[in-house]
Amino acid sequence: MTTETTPSYPVDEINRVKRRHDRGRYDVNTVHALLDSTALCHVAYAIDGQPYCTPTLYWREGSRLYWHGSSASRMLRNLADGEPACLTVTHLDSLVLARCGFNHSADYRSVMAFGRARLVNEAEEKERALVMMVDRFFPGRTAQLRQSTRAEIKATAVVTMEIERASAKIRAKGVADDDEDYELPIYAERLPVYTVLGAPQACARLPPGVARPGNLASYREGRRLDDAVTEAYGIAYAETEPVGG
Amino acid sequence: MTTETTPSYPVDEINRVKRRHDRGRYDVNTVHALLDSTALCHVAYAIDGQPYCTPTLYWREGSRLYWHGSSASRMLRNLADGEPACLTVTHLDSLVLARCGFNHSADYRSVMAFGRARLVNEAEEKERALVMMVDRFFPGRTAQLRQSTRAEIKATAVVTMEIERASAKIRAKGVADDDEDYELPIYAERLPVYTVLGAPQACARLPPGVARPGNLASYREGRRLDDAVTEAYGIAYAETEPVGG
Repeated sequence: MTTETTPSYPVDEINRVKRRHDRGRYDVNTVHALLDSTALCHVAYAIDGQPYCTPTLYWREGSRLYWHGSSASRMLRNLADGEPACLTVTHLDSLVLARCGFNHSADYRSVMAFGRARLVNEAEEKERALVMMVDRFFPGRTAQLRQSTRAEIKATAVVTMEIERASAKIRAKGVADDDEDYELPIYAERLPVYTVLGAPQACARLPPGVARPGNLASYREGRRLDDAVTEAYGIAYAETEPVGG
Repeated sequence: MTTETTPSYPVDEINRVKRRHDRGRYDVNTVHALLDSTALCHVAYAIDGQPYCTPTLYWREGSRLYWHGSSASRMLRNLADGEPACLTVTHLDSLVLARCGFNHSADYRSVMAFGRARLVNEAEEKERALVMMVDRFFPGRTAQLRQSTRAEIKATAVVTMEIERASAKIRAKGVADDDEDYELPIYAERLPVYTVLGAPQACARLPPGVARPGNLASYREGRRLDDAVTEAYGIAYAETEPVGG
């Protein structure tokens, strides 16, 4: 898939949003923007017919998703060879208290991305991935760090998955009751949920004079994590990816 | 599994924490406490060999997990018949910026629960589930609502899964660098991440005089969602479940 020429991911039985299809979106911009606003995903895969749902940090580069882990992990050993997987990200934006049980709900933004995972074996692609798994969240940081050793690089497995299908599902309407229920004397509300940053906690063992570098400034107390992560993405890929890609 | 007599979930190849096994926990109290501190989970299941990872609200009752959805949903139609599934919850507690790329990490608390999903068909069990999917988060709320109609009950499918295996995985140590790296002039920090409640947004169409009921008081601006959800669980099940169950 080339993002410049394909505005939407293809839709078929696997990724079509069936339940509440009015909430489904397949355009690349919506899908990628959600993928770029989060650090945590959950990956579904199956081993011998048993499904697993594993949380992990991940990042996107073009139409490829990347995540990493130990070379010894169950997931990575089993996903290495083109196994089908589904990577999902979800923002829980509110709990919705309606006037009947049926209309209780939540506002959320989620993406399900489908493809086949493979291990990144080629040295140059792996080297770049190990840089971007840090710099995608903290642009410029790798250049400030102690260099990785060969043993560390060997011990880190990187998985990539070309997005073959994807769907976004968004609910953002708060309380939505049946028309005839609004006149009832029943309290209803939208209860917002935010994921935010706390005050950065500098390592207690910093040598004297080592200050917080300026490239971390966008990660500040009280800021929404999705905003900080989205901003970092824009900086990290400003020169390497077309706008909207 | 009876929680009174079994302090831990059984461990085998499916749920053993392999990567960073020092972070693995299998005792029922740890697993249940984490399951009871969240509203959002991700469920992994497979249809025709294709894994899916679906976000949903869920709740626990004893050693059973429950979630719901439309009777028309892909997941529920396919999970109804004892299909294996994995339900995972994750709190992202921090991003960890270390002195080398390899030690960049995150603090988190997660549970993976394994079992076989089945549709709740029996009328009494379904009725109770439809009450608890609201009252588990907002104790006492169902009694304040417009009663569910038969059409609503029919349109709501409830899935349950007896937890056969489970594992918790917890990282809570912030920066953890190699000993020889602490003297390097490199900045390192723990960047806390919190999921919190915003100010409740009352429905704009409330009739005059309808006030926020007192049983919602624990959901207040600035509170951590996990604390509010845990407190609600304790109230909702105070009289129906043994302590530690």
